[in-house]
Amino acid sequence: MRFRNKPWAKDYIAENAYYCIPNPEEHKGKWAVLFGNSNPIHIEVGTGKGTFITEMAKANPEINYIGIELFESVIVKALERAVEADIPNVKLLNVDAKKLTEIFEKGEVNQVYLNFSDPWPKGRHEKRRLTYKDFLDLYKTVLIEQGEIHFKTDNRGLFEYSLMSFSSYGLLLKYVSLDLHNSDFEGNIMTEYEEKFSSLGQPIYRCEVKYMD
Amino acid sequence: MRFRNKPWAKDYIAENAYYCIPNPEEHKGKWAVLFGNSNPIHIEVGTGKGTFITEMAKANPEINYIGIELFESVIVKALERAVEADIPNVKLLNVDAKKLTEIFEKGEVNQVYLNFSDPWPKGRHEKRRLTYKDFLDLYKTVLIEQGEIHFKTDNRGLFEYSLMSFSSYGLLLKYVSLDLHNSDFEGNIMTEYEEKFSSLGQPIYRCEVKYMD
Repeated sequence: MRFRNKPWAKDYIAENAYYCIPNPEEHKGKWAVLFGNSNPIHIEVGTGKGTFITEMAKANPEINYIGIELFESVIVKALERAVEADIPNVKLLNVDAKKLTEIFEKGEVNQVYLNFSDPWPKGRHEKRRLTYKDFLDLYKTVLIEQGEIHFKTDNRGLFEYSLMSFSSYGLLLKYVSLDLHNSDFEGNIMTEYEEKFSSLGQPIYRCEVKYMD
Repeated sequence: MRFRNKPWAKDYIAENAYYCIPNPEEHKGKWAVLFGNSNPIHIEVGTGKGTFITEMAKANPEINYIGIELFESVIVKALERAVEADIPNVKLLNVDAKKLTEIFEKGEVNQVYLNFSDPWPKGRHEKRRLTYKDFLDLYKTVLIEQGEIHFKTDNRGLFEYSLMSFSSYGLLLKYVSLDLHNSDFEGNIMTEYEEKFSSLGQPIYRCEVKYMD
């Protein structure tokens, strides 16, 4: 992931407020109004360049997708994709995932996706991993009851850590694949990152976990 | 694993009753008496040719090891190893793992090892997998409170299944490695099977799970 400065990014984001929503806190509890329907809302935390969320939105018009990405220089790539796709069921938010509970009401989100999240391999950075317990708290707060997190990564250390973190939190592991591209899972939408790494023979790990209380 | 008929196996087992204990049900609740001490008891279910249990017993004289193996033609290999090692803290039982609760009293076992268990890949054979819930019940019945299962395998399907089975059962995943031989885990004792498969570049999966109630 490059973080090259893009001086035009801010303007491009401002010009495309239909896709990249400014001041998302103002829509808390009212995302159905913004989408103009009460379809389920799936969010991707750390949406990167947006291939996954845009392709998912194309494939599933009955679901509303919201991609969340902290870095302006990255989300513009996702925004270009969303503008090009020109579909109403994908939105992007240029905010910190730590603000999830300021953006969504309890139960407003039906599912969380985490794809190729930053592994933060150093132990002292554990709290930054998107599968750290504080983030699991945030997802729980905005998800429906028995909501799910769908997570995939090529990073073995992050996946191992996450399986333990999920277990420790009491989440039910309802699906796991330790080699997604050689499994019977259907309908996988690859991110750009995923295509690159799986072509090198690196296995992709994937799981689905469910909040039980 | 070969199951070649070994006509001498029965005699060899009978001749070495110090290592391969006949009528193990008679020792239920009294294994400390048989070992002559009250050291912790670790059992390996499906001990195969016995490399793991014998090497563990040599490395940890303060722990008593019991290997359980259904097949007579296989356990004789483990027995040869035990006889050769000539140490008092390893015993073998030629019985079906389903009989665990007839052999051990509640809390008599401190830890369970499962190594390269038969994957039984067909769905209709799920109940035969040693990580199926009925077996998790058996282990729980004989283990101390908060006892642990330490499990390793090269079989991806079995490991995926087992992670889900453990989670569904409410076991805590306290350790997981998706590539044991390239992890920081120390003190791994390789089975013959493990040496063979890891030399082919196949990752070895390993986890430790803990009963929480």
